[in-house]
Amino acid sequence: MNIYNCWLQERIVKNTAGLPLEKVYAEKGGLIAKQAVEEYRRGVKRLTGITPAVLPVKAGNNSKIAPGVFLGTYKGFEKIFQITTNSFADSSADNFTDSSAVSSAEGGFYIKNKDGNLLIAGYDDCGLLYGVFRFLMQLALDRDGPFPDIQEEPASPLRIINHWDSITGLVGRGYAGRSLFFENNRFDYNKERITDYARLLASVGINRISISNVNVNNAEKLFITKQYLGELAKIAAIFRPFGIKLILSVSFAAPMSVGKLPTADPFNPSVITWWKEQTDLVYSYIPDLAGFIVKADSEGEPGPFQYNRTQADGANVLARALVPHNGTVFWRCFVYNCQQDWRDHSQDRARAAYDHFMPLDGSFDDNVILQIKFGPYDFQVREPVAPLFGALKKTRHIMELQITQEYTGHQIDLCYLPWIWQDIIKFDTAYGPDSRIMDLVCGNKDTSKLEGFASVVNTGRDRNWTGHTLAQANLFGYGRIIWNPALNAEEIARQWSDLSFGPGPAADTVTDLLLRSYPAFEKYNAPFGICFMVTPGLHYGPNIEGYEFDRWGTYHRADAHAIGIDRTPSGTDYTDQYAPQNAAVFADPARCPENVILFFHRLRYDFIMKNGQTLLQNIYDTHFEGYDEVEAMLEKWKSLKSSLKEEVYKPVLARFERQLKNAREWRDQVNTYFWRKTGIPDKRGRMIYD
Amino acid sequence: MNIYNCWLQERIVKNTAGLPLEKVYAEKGGLIAKQAVEEYRRGVKRLTGITPAVLPVKAGNNSKIAPGVFLGTYKGFEKIFQITTNSFADSSADNFTDSSAVSSAEGGFYIKNKDGNLLIAGYDDCGLLYGVFRFLMQLALDRDGPFPDIQEEPASPLRIINHWDSITGLVGRGYAGRSLFFENNRFDYNKERITDYARLLASVGINRISISNVNVNNAEKLFITKQYLGELAKIAAIFRPFGIKLILSVSFAAPMSVGKLPTADPFNPSVITWWKEQTDLVYSYIPDLAGFIVKADSEGEPGPFQYNRTQADGANVLARALVPHNGTVFWRCFVYNCQQDWRDHSQDRARAAYDHFMPLDGSFDDNVILQIKFGPYDFQVREPVAPLFGALKKTRHIMELQITQEYTGHQIDLCYLPWIWQDIIKFDTAYGPDSRIMDLVCGNKDTSKLEGFASVVNTGRDRNWTGHTLAQANLFGYGRIIWNPALNAEEIARQWSDLSFGPGPAADTVTDLLLRSYPAFEKYNAPFGICFMVTPGLHYGPNIEGYEFDRWGTYHRADAHAIGIDRTPSGTDYTDQYAPQNAAVFADPARCPENVILFFHRLRYDFIMKNGQTLLQNIYDTHFEGYDEVEAMLEKWKSLKSSLKEEVYKPVLARFERQLKNAREWRDQVNTYFWRKTGIPDKRGRMIYD
Repeated sequence: MNIYNCWLQERIVKNTAGLPLEKVYAEKGGLIAKQAVEEYRRGVKRLTGITPAVLPVKAGNNSKIAPGVFLGTYKGFEKIFQITTNSFADSSADNFTDSSAVSSAEGGFYIKNKDGNLLIAGYDDCGLLYGVFRFLMQLALDRDGPFPDIQEEPASPLRIINHWDSITGLVGRGYAGRSLFFENNRFDYNKERITDYARLLASVGINRISISNVNVNNAEKLFITKQYLGELAKIAAIFRPFGIKLILSVSFAAPMSVGKLPTADPFNPSVITWWKEQTDLVYSYIPDLAGFIVKADSEGEPGPFQYNRTQADGANVLARALVPHNGTVFWRCFVYNCQQDWRDHSQDRARAAYDHFMPLDGSFDDNVILQIKFGPYDFQVREPVAPLFGALKKTRHIMELQITQEYTGHQIDLCYLPWIWQDIIKFDTAYGPDSRIMDLVCGNKDTSKLEGFASVVNTGRDRNWTGHTLAQANLFGYGRIIWNPALNAEEIARQWSDLSFGPGPAADTVTDLLLRSYPAFEKYNAPFGICFMVTPGLHYGPNIEGYEFDRWGTYHRADAHAIGIDRTPSGTDYTDQYAPQNAAVFADPARCPENVILFFHRLRYDFIMKNGQTLLQNIYDTHFEGYDEVEAMLEKWKSLKSSLKEEVYKPVLARFERQLKNAREWRDQVNTYFWRKTGIPDKRGRMIYD
Repeated sequence: MNIYNCWLQERIVKNTAGLPLEKVYAEKGGLIAKQAVEEYRRGVKRLTGITPAVLPVKAGNNSKIAPGVFLGTYKGFEKIFQITTNSFADSSADNFTDSSAVSSAEGGFYIKNKDGNLLIAGYDDCGLLYGVFRFLMQLALDRDGPFPDIQEEPASPLRIINHWDSITGLVGRGYAGRSLFFENNRFDYNKERITDYARLLASVGINRISISNVNVNNAEKLFITKQYLGELAKIAAIFRPFGIKLILSVSFAAPMSVGKLPTADPFNPSVITWWKEQTDLVYSYIPDLAGFIVKADSEGEPGPFQYNRTQADGANVLARALVPHNGTVFWRCFVYNCQQDWRDHSQDRARAAYDHFMPLDGSFDDNVILQIKFGPYDFQVREPVAPLFGALKKTRHIMELQITQEYTGHQIDLCYLPWIWQDIIKFDTAYGPDSRIMDLVCGNKDTSKLEGFASVVNTGRDRNWTGHTLAQANLFGYGRIIWNPALNAEEIARQWSDLSFGPGPAADTVTDLLLRSYPAFEKYNAPFGICFMVTPGLHYGPNIEGYEFDRWGTYHRADAHAIGIDRTPSGTDYTDQYAPQNAAVFADPARCPENVILFFHRLRYDFIMKNGQTLLQNIYDTHFEGYDEVEAMLEKWKSLKSSLKEEVYKPVLARFERQLKNAREWRDQVNTYFWRKTGIPDKRGRMIYD
């Protein structure tokens, strides 16, 4: 494994399934189609050593020039290769497919291996590009037997990466070095590396990217001005051939900070005009910009509330400026009172997103998309899925995840995130029969459904991109699972390990480590969905009462007898924000899933859990187990010493050692905290410090 | 009051006691004597409007040129005024004094008002300067009746101000704006302001100053090189006429970081030579430099431990380089394990300074002075006095205090520090009959006694120097109390208020506020000497368990039944570091002073205190009272609205309002914490939040 190459390793595969890889007939296409052919060429060279010859094709019946590899779009195939879309579905005809349907979604593709020919056809140019990457992935997996037919289309139209990079070079919640794009208050990047980055992202289907923080500070405010738009256009040009469009982080107060207007009131005519003109300027530089992302009225960022306008009023003023350019506003729903008084039990931060946005359902313009965090808090190790999903009926929206390990170990601790994402994706919102998150993910324009995902990314200037080499699996897994929410975490782990290490015992071990990592992390973290026992600000390591008397609204209120917030109808009634069936389950401690039971309930330490043990004993048990599991993971990693290159083995070893220290702090601080609080010892007599 | 002028206000006094202020005969003296005459001239103008004429005097009998004001030294008086030192003490002779003794210490002076003449005589030039300032202070206090005779000499030979300023402009633990000396990585100051600063300091007797942080970072390491010595010499030149000598903060690892040697081992001949040569260079720029201050083996700073050398070995290598220049090493004793494991009950940070330094008593060279924090921790609101005082017999040492309000409210909260300093100074170490700290303070060379004080200062670029205008009283009070440890806090508060506001009802109110402030702060802070319930890092506001699981060695280990560390012989035996009589008192909960009882003992919440109430009830009571007292202070300040200028009134009002918020957080977080822990309600039914 070369740590820089991630899942696109250079490696000669054993099984090329007799495919005629060296002779390629490619439809003459646009920028993205050309990139697809280039990726085919590079990829086949990387995996077989063969440098394919790309041969010209002309209009007319070319089907007899086989055997060869045919790269194109459905329409191109009709025109050039005389293969109709219909014939894809016709199993009796002499054609390349026997499937009953072809993909008809943007980015969809078909790979067919028949009669010694290989056909990779995209619904559009992007589809071709994804088809090529999917083909290369399959080749790299190096499975035995004939090459399979593959038909795919992305479940999510929007597959977004958000960077929280600053022009200073600092990466917000970044644990993999400085920014890939900025340094020292200017654009500063290696073009080749950004191209490699675009390739990595496109290879797992990413199609949108924002490169700067949603907290729009200082110079970043000027990104929408001539001073920086030229630079941004250059970045857009690097991502463009890979089917990835730029999204720009803007400040709601830009009319004031940039435009020098006296207000940013969305109803003010000068503000409306200013946004229109400024947006026109932006699009004159980047005509295919996907739109703006806005963090408004959130953690100190300006927003419409200060003018007594709604979130919809705020979003719509931007949306209207974007309409002429087919641009979209991505409007984050992370709106909550971050100046809460811990004494006030009547407020409940968990309620905030729903309380703020549900009443506005239907008030947002067509080109506004709400970006909603998966849970009601903030990317905790375990939270319930936020109640807006399934509930919103008339507002376009996407789900925000976090690839960067802000609360899940800073890419020091191994924490394989598809494990939690699959749980989120399988969560049933209980609004109707097909109401799991994975069922709700669907194409554009059905405003009751989910148009995709955005995620804060885990990459930076570290040579291996992600700090922890195994954290590459999270970036890979994000692309994979939002492309196809039916994939499970195990399958993705297996794919990533095989692609990165090559199929074999090392990959098996790594797969096993990935799959054990999330449960272990969850065990040594805050117990049973209580959340926020983490070091304030930093968000690494335990601090049991760190948020307890602070302004962030995330309290556990542990006393001598009980812990947790009552969010049932007898408490803050947060449960009522869910569909009735879920509300009833969550509100009932006997039925509530135990991994979030302390999110919904205030329970006595002697509450009996499903395993017959008390809550307290379960806290002790999980924390001892979590530590032990990290210890076992460390030992397992050591078993790989002889099979891995030093640049892979040693830094990961060092991180496992740090993780073990971290797990020890979590175990001991949590256990000591509850032991001191209750005076009740561990039933099994293990060491709990005074 | 003009906030810039502090206690040197411009104000016409009522009573000049018929003194012949306008006619001055001054001995022709050196730089400092000249400054004394200038200060006389400026001060009299400031307080009377009169511009005195400074008349020349010649050798010979000048006593008949009276009435006039005579400024000189004892020796000069003998020569020029024909007044012998003996005659000072001879009550029957026709001379200026009837005291039985004259000051014979450096900086001592005599002020005599007789037969219409005023005589200000210093033992040396500095004494004359201090005499002039003392005279001006007395004049400004504007007391009725005849002008009193005053004879003083400083109790402490060393009266030191330490700045923790960085060349970046940031002030370590500074709450009054950016550095007076530095900005943007270079020396950057207003010469006039630094002159005013020197005047303020000299007016209360300060005679040594270090201007940069003991944490010697980056560029500050180069202060001992040609690159910066020219700049430092300019600063030294500003302070010199005011009798204030520079001390330089140096890094123990300078032979490596500056000298590029492979080691800083104090036994290495190259290191020894390097220090000698580098020190020679320093003194070629600043021949009267007082010496070096060093923070070694402390909180990450380098030191002799890494070469398996003792603290004495480390200090002595610097001392030997300083000997030819009569320079001194100020060697800080803040050496402790800052990587402690909270699980480890066997270590006790309180023991550290004594354990490290007591065994080395007698091993330090003559020109090494240990700088020892007043308490075993770190400037907490209440700590016992550190046991090294009185115990050290063969090592020169001074006591370190903190004027800057690191743990005492950041100059947001009013906290008048002479209140605690008088307690420290009156503490009896119980080593012999005259063994109070105030008895131990004495002149040079008695290594069992205290040669003075150093303190981290509270000044910065804010126009009023100290952020909180009333915090000027702390700078003033520091100078006053270390000059004369017999002064009590009330007297100093009265002086400062009268000088700053002019005698009258406003000054009475301010005096009252100052005197109430420390008891109030102590009440709403961490209870009964437990310490460190403060926000980690920042050190403002409560965080009850903030240090509980951290590496700093400052734990309270509160559980459901008890709180505190047992530091008696049954615990860490820290009490044994004190003289037997004190050890016995501290080790006995029935006799231990209650304001530090939780520093020495682990007590159950139902422990009965002297007032008959439980410890827990006392915690509740003090926290309710502390808040109420701040509320009353705020109201009292409001009563001054019409009598104060807005630049005085409003910023202090705003700070009182912030203090009230802070006191509320302390009250409620502390009370809630213990209520949750114990489930025992307040006997008086006041509001404690769940």
